[in-house]
Amino acid sequence: METAYFNGKLLPKDEIKISPDDRGFLFADGVYEVVRWYEGFFYDMSSHITRLKRSLRELRINWSDADSFPIFAGDLIKLNKLENSPAMVYIQVTRGIARRTHSFPSPEVSPTIYAYGWGFVPDNKLKETGIKVMLKEDIRWSRCDIKSVALLANTLSFQEAKENGMKECIFVRNGLITEGSHSNIFLVIDGTLFTHPESNHVLSGITRKNILRIAEESGIKIREEAVQENRIRFVKEAFITNTSAEVTPVTELGGNTLGDGVPGPITIIIRDKFDEEIRAFKA
Amino acid sequence: METAYFNGKLLPKDEIKISPDDRGFLFADGVYEVVRWYEGFFYDMSSHITRLKRSLRELRINWSDADSFPIFAGDLIKLNKLENSPAMVYIQVTRGIARRTHSFPSPEVSPTIYAYGWGFVPDNKLKETGIKVMLKEDIRWSRCDIKSVALLANTLSFQEAKENGMKECIFVRNGLITEGSHSNIFLVIDGTLFTHPESNHVLSGITRKNILRIAEESGIKIREEAVQENRIRFVKEAFITNTSAEVTPVTELGGNTLGDGVPGPITIIIRDKFDEEIRAFKA
Repeated sequence: METAYFNGKLLPKDEIKISPDDRGFLFADGVYEVVRWYEGFFYDMSSHITRLKRSLRELRINWSDADSFPIFAGDLIKLNKLENSPAMVYIQVTRGIARRTHSFPSPEVSPTIYAYGWGFVPDNKLKETGIKVMLKEDIRWSRCDIKSVALLANTLSFQEAKENGMKECIFVRNGLITEGSHSNIFLVIDGTLFTHPESNHVLSGITRKNILRIAEESGIKIREEAVQENRIRFVKEAFITNTSAEVTPVTELGGNTLGDGVPGPITIIIRDKFDEEIRAFKA
Repeated sequence: METAYFNGKLLPKDEIKISPDDRGFLFADGVYEVVRWYEGFFYDMSSHITRLKRSLRELRINWSDADSFPIFAGDLIKLNKLENSPAMVYIQVTRGIARRTHSFPSPEVSPTIYAYGWGFVPDNKLKETGIKVMLKEDIRWSRCDIKSVALLANTLSFQEAKENGMKECIFVRNGLITEGSHSNIFLVIDGTLFTHPESNHVLSGITRKNILRIAEESGIKIREEAVQENRIRFVKEAFITNTSAEVTPVTELGGNTLGDGVPGPITIIIRDKFDEEIRAFKA
């Protein structure tokens, strides 16, 4: 029996029922986070909480208990016997239940809090071989910095990638490479590591932030600057990052083979340093 | 006891429970329609069904029973004793229930169908006096032609309008006036009626379409062409349209008083012809 969390209670997931008046269901009026459990600890939980609070603040959803997330996330791991597995915990917070009208409920209602966890087998092969990704015009809204559940554009774009045999869809907006449908992207040109700067057009990824730190510690030249799509021919390496993919090399970008078509040297350094850091945490 | 519709059944609304794995809740992966009941008939139901089918097709959600909507919409009116009231029926169709992953469920799952109805008292005063609306950069995605439940940008924008004492938020994209957060907008310049053409940046409103027909029948010059924001000083009249607001005059647009600050003559002709058409249907 799978145990999940709902509005302050741990209970069988089957018993959780969302109201059809929930603004998460009617308006995508909510935010989420996904944290990674490494057989013993959540990776950078504090950054996830900070980002969750920021998303809530941007939408003006008042949930004062965000600091309790690590506690019930830990309960979910334990109750679902995931302590010794690679696992994830998902949390979603919506504005709550109210008669359908575009404006915020007045008087305010309690937010809906839902969380669950699951174990998985990491696909480490892709971290070795690298992946092919497609490029596509960014059709999303212009507040991609908010980790909201208004993910329809992301799902449609990722589905298109999948149907084209690609493992991710990377977006281009106004001629600039921004990020993936559920990842950030880093590109190497002339030995310098580029990634789109924090802005309203990208999510400030937790792994992105940690990779920037690791790259700096490794003495790699970094520029938080968007790469123009028309400069792809100069891109010698690339990789995507997110909580589940960690550092996954990209060998083909929008039909262009990068470098020798295998994970590049800077990518390998960073991937391995990230893995090392995780191993050190575990020890 | 309120009766609603859920996956083929009419049942007490309280008993309807959405799964937390519903893609409508997790990804805004669904579409909706709202139809108006005029004490005896649904206004232009067939156009709503056509649009619902198009939205479903664009998202590749397979619901083969869209033609049954008028039947259970009628049931909702009857069972909730709304026959003799102004009322609305809302329908939402999501891709269904599946373990959370961005790509479409494979194998495919059954869509979730949810509908409910409610009576209301139309605010006819605003149709007489007109409303003030704000102007704001369009932060939405670029598939506004799909009537999806990914409405977070719309709710945030409408909330901002409300807090500024405005009755709607009208969007501007690339310097062009597109539409409202939940309405289309028509503008009169030099005696010609302008509205944004059908495109991926606006919803093809059912009322919009009928107003274009009524304007044409009334011999009013029409141009389905976007108006530049910097031409607002030439706008002498404006009105918004949607299923609930019908034709509601706009007297102030983004801080600019239009004409004499009262509903203009072309607006009044169109509003009255629309009302006349409704009365004729009722007779």
